[in-house]
Amino acid sequence: MAVRGGEIEPTRIMVAVNESKTNGYPHASESCTAAFEWTLKTIVRNNASRLKILLIHVQLPDDEGGSDHVIVDNIYSSPEDFKHMKRRDLFGAIRLLGYFMKQCQDVGVACEAYLKEGVPKTIICCEANDARPDLLVVGSRGLSLSTFRKIFIGSVGEYCLKHADCPVIVIKHSPPETPQSTLDDSTTL
Amino acid sequence: MAVRGGEIEPTRIMVAVNESKTNGYPHASESCTAAFEWTLKTIVRNNASRLKILLIHVQLPDDEGGSDHVIVDNIYSSPEDFKHMKRRDLFGAIRLLGYFMKQCQDVGVACEAYLKEGVPKTIICCEANDARPDLLVVGSRGLSLSTFRKIFIGSVGEYCLKHADCPVIVIKHSPPETPQSTLDDSTTL
Repeated sequence: MAVRGGEIEPTRIMVAVNESKTNGYPHASESCTAAFEWTLKTIVRNNASRLKILLIHVQLPDDEGGSDHVIVDNIYSSPEDFKHMKRRDLFGAIRLLGYFMKQCQDVGVACEAYLKEGVPKTIICCEANDARPDLLVVGSRGLSLSTFRKIFIGSVGEYCLKHADCPVIVIKHSPPETPQSTLDDSTTL
Repeated sequence: MAVRGGEIEPTRIMVAVNESKTNGYPHASESCTAAFEWTLKTIVRNNASRLKILLIHVQLPDDEGGSDHVIVDNIYSSPEDFKHMKRRDLFGAIRLLGYFMKQCQDVGVACEAYLKEGVPKTIICCEANDARPDLLVVGSRGLSLSTFRKIFIGSVGEYCLKHADCPVIVIKHSPPETPQSTLDDSTTL
């Protein structure tokens, strides 16, 4: 919450999102959905006008060594921005960001989406350190084995805790929500 | 944010606080002050009526093996609750909690204070797991050496990240705020 030109700026919260391909069809992973929903219910609540969500999704490079950087290396501020993007390799990423942006619109919280390419944990930290949000929220798969549940915070979460300049929250799954399949959340978090 | 009996409950944020004895005089440590102030400015903002702060301070046992448990093992809801407590060994702890409770009162956010005794990191986690806040916030001393600054999250922070059931934020110091003396924050965080 900074004051610039007499106006109080919103609290900016960056939320990392990723896809899951459980059942063969891409959709938002359970871990990032839990992180996003935690952010809405605990922090945004009905204080939406004072907050801004920065969604970040990091696409892994394709086999040919890269995607369309005009599309990938960009920031989007409305679901409408994605309407004319139909590249097959980016369809999932665009759908993912559009899905969460729509939810932000529904609760009236401002939102920007960052679509980037590279190694998720390093890119998330780099972007967080550039964008300087007040808080970075990432999900964690957790493990269904109770012995390990509490000590597992995920590789992306652990990396961000160590390398992001801003405060970081890792949202751990509670056991019933833990994905049964290792395919879920397999790409990043 | 749970709904009970038709009423939406406030988001409950537990903040761990501790003393520092820099310059020989006890006062709130820089790390817990940073964590508390971060909570007020980033999350509470002017949404105070929807939130509740749970302050927790864990007193180390004295040399004789314990303090007055009527005083220590209790929860307080107003600075007035501390007025008649003058035991010398608890004076600092009571002053510390009163100091932060007063700030909560000033911004209009509800507050409870937990005064406990034992090993800080384990007691903080036990109390958090009992009280089930939506979020636990702890400070971290950080280190003034830039190489280590980003990877140091403090022993209490690290323990809570692994063992608390709720999401945890560790507020790291930025370099200029890092205490120069190792005496600061020496007791817990």
